[in-house]
Order: sequence, then C-alpha cells, then structure tokens
Amino acid sequence: MSKDVAIIGVGQSAFVRGYEGSIRELAFEAYSEAMKDAGITSKDIEASVIGSAPEYDKQRSPSGLMAEYLGLNPQPTFNVESVCSSSTTGLWLAYSMIKAGLYDPVVVLGFQKMSEITSADSQERMGRGADIMWESPFGTMMPAYYAMHAQGHFARYGTTEEDLALIRVKATSYGKINEKAVYRKELTVEQCLESAVVASPLKVFDCCANADGSSCMILASADKAKEISSKPVYVLGIGSGTASLTMTGRNTLYGLDCAKVAAKEAYEMAGLTPQDIDVAEVHDCFTIAEMMAYENLGFAEPGKGAELIRNRETYIGGKIPVNVDGGLLSKGHPIGATGGSQVRTIVLQLRGEAGDMQVPGAEIGLVHNIGGVGIYGNVIILGR
Amino acid sequence: MSKDVAIIGVGQSAFVRGYEGSIRELAFEAYSEAMKDAGITSKDIEASVIGSAPEYDKQRSPSGLMAEYLGLNPQPTFNVESVCSSSTTGLWLAYSMIKAGLYDPVVVLGFQKMSEITSADSQERMGRGADIMWESPFGTMMPAYYAMHAQGHFARYGTTEEDLALIRVKATSYGKINEKAVYRKELTVEQCLESAVVASPLKVFDCCANADGSSCMILASADKAKEISSKPVYVLGIGSGTASLTMTGRNTLYGLDCAKVAAKEAYEMAGLTPQDIDVAEVHDCFTIAEMMAYENLGFAEPGKGAELIRNRETYIGGKIPVNVDGGLLSKGHPIGATGGSQVRTIVLQLRGEAGDMQVPGAEIGLVHNIGGVGIYGNVIILGR
Repeated sequence: MSKDVAIIGVGQSAFVRGYEGSIRELAFEAYSEAMKDAGITSKDIEASVIGSAPEYDKQRSPSGLMAEYLGLNPQPTFNVESVCSSSTTGLWLAYSMIKAGLYDPVVVLGFQKMSEITSADSQERMGRGADIMWESPFGTMMPAYYAMHAQGHFARYGTTEEDLALIRVKATSYGKINEKAVYRKELTVEQCLESAVVASPLKVFDCCANADGSSCMILASADKAKEISSKPVYVLGIGSGTASLTMTGRNTLYGLDCAKVAAKEAYEMAGLTPQDIDVAEVHDCFTIAEMMAYENLGFAEPGKGAELIRNRETYIGGKIPVNVDGGLLSKGHPIGATGGSQVRTIVLQLRGEAGDMQVPGAEIGLVHNIGGVGIYGNVIILGR
Repeated sequence: MSKDVAIIGVGQSAFVRGYEGSIRELAFEAYSEAMKDAGITSKDIEASVIGSAPEYDKQRSPSGLMAEYLGLNPQPTFNVESVCSSSTTGLWLAYSMIKAGLYDPVVVLGFQKMSEITSADSQERMGRGADIMWESPFGTMMPAYYAMHAQGHFARYGTTEEDLALIRVKATSYGKINEKAVYRKELTVEQCLESAVVASPLKVFDCCANADGSSCMILASADKAKEISSKPVYVLGIGSGTASLTMTGRNTLYGLDCAKVAAKEAYEMAGLTPQDIDVAEVHDCFTIAEMMAYENLGFAEPGKGAELIRNRETYIGGKIPVNVDGGLLSKGHPIGATGGSQVRTIVLQLRGEAGDMQVPGAEIGLVHNIGGVGIYGNVIILGR
C-alpha cells in the first residue's frame, strides 16, 4: 500500500445551469474553498494542473489564464485533457510530479462552463471526442453509444429498464440533500420510465445533468502533508486504462475494459480488494454506466450488477454505498470538474465530514472516472 | 546532476505544408521512426503522452485516437497541451511518471496539422490562446505580441532590424541542409529587410514557418534504458516556468520571465552553467524570440544578444551554436510537434548523428520551448 502522496485540501463550486461569471470566477470558487480547506495560500503552491475539455469556452489553453488569475505565476502549470476524466487525469500528473520530487504541493483544478454553448453544440462536440473519421460522421453521440451498451447488457444479462430507473431514483434521493447538486428533485421509478426516449433504451432521466462547475484538489507528499494538514487522506492506489476509441474495436459492449484494467492496477497497488471499499464514487454519466461500474469494479460479479441496486446495496447502509452525493446523474456533470468533485466527495467521507450523506465509519473509498465511452478509465483508491 | 531518466528513441516527420493524410498518419510517421530508433514495439510501451493544441483538427481528445491507431490500448494515455510547448510539457509528464515508478518506458508524441484550417483561422485561434477577455478582442495576435517585445528590446538595448535579419539568415543557412525542414531556401539580410511588414518591426521573414508535422520521444528509466539502448541520452535537468497571460501583467517586454525561471531551475538541477552548453535549440517563433532566448538562457548578458549573432557565435564553430537545424523559422513550427522536434535535434547532436548539421564533440545540449507569448517556458538539459 502506497502512502507517499496525500490529498490535503478539496473544494467544489455549486454545480449549476447557466453560471453567470466567466471561467476564471467559476474556477476560483473551487480553488478558494480548497485553499481554505488546506490552510495554505497561492504562494505555498509549487505547480498547478488544470483539467478541462476544450471548445466549450472561447479561451484556449486555460492553464495560462488560471495561473495568472489565481496568483500562481511564475510556477509551472500544466493543462491536461481526457474529456470527462480530465481532472482525475490531472491527479495522475500531480501524483507523479510529487513522487518524482519535482513539485510539492501541487494543485489540481478542474472546471467546465458547459452553458457557454448550446446543448446541441455540446452534443456535437462530445461526438467529436469519438472517432471523427469512422464513427461520429454517422451521428453517433454519447447517449447513442451508452444506449448500445445498455442494449448489450440487457441482451446478455437480462437487465431491465426498471433496473436502470432504480439507479436514477437512488441518485435523486441523494441529489436532493446535496446543496451543491444541480438536480435537487426526487424522482420515482415511474417518472423515470415515462420520460422521453433519447436513444433506446435510455430516456431523459437515464442521462446525467450537464452543468457548469469547478472542483479542486491539493496534493502533497506525505511529509509535507503531515506538516500542513491535520486530516490528510492518502492515495493508496491508482490505475489507468484505455480501450479503443472506436466501438468496432471493442471486445464487448456490456462493460468497459478500460475500467477493469484501471481497477485491477489500483487494487494491486493498494493491496486491497473490492470487499475493502467502504464508499465509492462511480462515473454514472448514464444509468447503464453505473450498472457496468458495479461489475467492472468487482462490487458485483459480471451480470449481477442489477441485484445490487434491486437490493439497495448501493444505498447508505448497504454493502457498498455508491454515489451518495447524487453522482453525475443528479449532482451534475461539468465534465472537466467531475473527477475532482468525485474525489472531494470521497475525501469528505473519509474525514467524516459528509453530513447527511455520510457513510458511517468509512475508511477506504474509491473513485471511478471515465473519459468518453470508456476510452479512458481512471480508478483511485483513497484511505485515511 | 540527475541521470535517472533517459531518451532512448526519437523521430520526426518531414515538416511540410498541406500534408495530405490525416493526423493519425501524420503522427505515425514520427512514432514509427522513434520506435525503430529505440528498437522496441508498441507492446513494450507502458504509457503514452500526446501533445497537441486543440481546434486545428475536428478530432477532439486525440490521445484516444492515437492509442488505438498505434496499438497502445489498454495502456493509459494522457493528453497535454501548452500551445507551442505541448510536446515538451509531455516530456515533463513522462519524466515524472517514470521517476514516480508508475510506467516505464513512456512515449511522448507531438503533432499538429495546421493546414487543416486557413492561415487566418490559425491566427484567430492563436489569438485566443491569449486573454480572450482583456486582450484578444482588441486584435492582438502572435506577431503583434512579439513585435511589442522587439520594440521593447530595440528601445532598451539598441537592437536593430538588421540584427533580427541576421538571425533569419542563419536559420535559412541550416534549413537549406535539413531534409525535414519546410523552408529550404537561403535568404540574405536584404531579402529579410525588404519583406512585407507584418507587425512593425517584424516582417514576413521574421516570422516562423507554419507547418504540418509530428515528433516523437521515447523515455525510459536509466535501468531500462541500459537494457534497451546502446545510445541513451540522459535528462540532466528540467525547469518550467510561467508568466502572466496578459501583457499588462508583465514586468518587462524585452525578455521572457518564464524562460529565465525555467533556465535557472534546469541549470540548478543539472549542476551546470550556460558555459557548459555545447549546442542549443531555442524557440525562435520570431527572430526576436531567439534574440531574447540568448539573454534569458545566459548565453549573453542582458542586452548583449545581438553581439552573439553579429559575431556569428551561434553558428556551428561559434561559442554556442543555436538552432542549427533551421529552427522554427526555417525547419517549421507545427506547434504540438515543435518541442519534440527540438529534443530530437539535440539527441541526434549528442549521439553524433546530426550529419551536415553536427556540432563537433557536442556533449551537453539544451532545449528551450515556449508556449504562447512567454506564458509557458520549458527548459531541458540533455547529456550523454
């Protein structure tokens, strides 16, 4: 088990629709909260990593903007992108740079102002994260890709539309109590099933809530963390994997191989198994994505994911509480900020500071953050 | 002096105008050359880093595309961007991940197909790498920003248009003999001075040649490098700095602070001084940028850069040969590929494989790669 690098501060803006400030102000919300949480100031930071997907905001290369706005010049800053997993990819780089002895501490800032463009433009851009030569010209977009996976899961394992609705119902029950969530309403299974079809079998309420938001994590070496923080949370294991960009290159369409590879690596590095995880944040961009995550992370055997949600095992009080902050489905999915927000949720859980969403006695937590339709997969295991 | 990480393979496509293939084929050219140079195959690679600026190609998040096309799934891949210094920023991350013990070896692939869009669109996009709230709406673009620096240097130090022309003349004398350069013609001082004004005092021939191209570096730990390679080149020192995105935030407009910070760090880490450098590649996106680099890197005292070029000290045979492959000015500047191409030139120099461009007996080399108008600065010192 590695305990070389710790998270000493976390922050998150409220996830909202139609944020009225610019990206610099949006990013500042998470940054200032994390700095306050860590009890440090910009002059203590040795490097910054910015995670954000391009083409939403007119500003290109936003790390230059952020470094100036946040008072981080002349320290180096690095811009990373892996679409929806950009900010956990940022965590990789911060972790590596700290462990390599280059910079310490390092701040990782994720943000996205999706409302800067129309919803249709957003879908078009997301489509161009897939293969623009062989796939996206034919109209494939995120809901269609995940719908294929849902169809695959239904066909192979007998999973049903009701099972997916149960996942959304769980998300809304926690989104309701999360003050930073964009979608605060509670939904019933019936409401989910009656919502308009987007890409069969996925309906409106199977899809996550786009949002504007920011997240921030401050990482430090174990030695530095002990100096600064009274409540460090350690990075016990990290794993990252990829799968083909094209769906035609995939072995199956009822699971994400990138997540399996990433989980295996992270568990091995941490010396832990799925049974050791007390609380998890998984990438539920669509309900089917959470279902597949149960299986890809080893919380359920392949094909048995539906049993977990049917038996409420992923609620607080169940075997493995998942997305008890509302997840991408209800908390919202400002893509560059999402991973950092997931990490924040787990850090607060492990510090016992999650309020009404607290999983009692949580000591080990897991984050599962996916880029694109399982192109990139990051799994991070955290512990006190 | 650090000798923990080595470069075991380098490759570069020809830098051209109007490349007819797609970005995947363009990237493959450098990748296949580097793999052959290292004597390994895709299955030996543990992670990849892709450096490229967005909004030139329709494909978003190109690391997913490249991982599939180059046979690198299911290994992790990381997309980084710092505009014109993207591929050396990639080197940072590869270096860190290797030294952190996460992945080994790691490939860093840079590419840009600038001809995918018009030259005017390219200028507009480059402008949006500057501050889109307070500066670029007023029409500031790269030539204008560097022209301000030239005016500043002229006013403070008495540098002249002829001095800048001398830098371009040197570049063309080496571009002529570099088979991979996009601009192969030799120019005279008169031709440079007579070319059309772009942003006074910078003229057409003070500006670098946009191009399509790719570059590739393969990095490994010292132990792995010794196993694989008979000719490793070590990363002796790296330094990275930033300056404000806005020009109004700068202390001066006759030098780049980010480069000074980066150089100081790199020299300190390597335990070397400017006098130890046998050959250098500097970021000559404009002639004035090379002039400032002479001073910011310590090859000349502040204000004395012009003397170096007047006395031909930066030619082969001079005190410190600079950009003897033609530089960005003549070899070309496909922005995401540029840094990796600079590193390749130095690696070939240190291996004694630079042909007609060889600096006799070169043992220590330096790379200086800048993003934007001195927003990001990376300095890398390499040695055998």
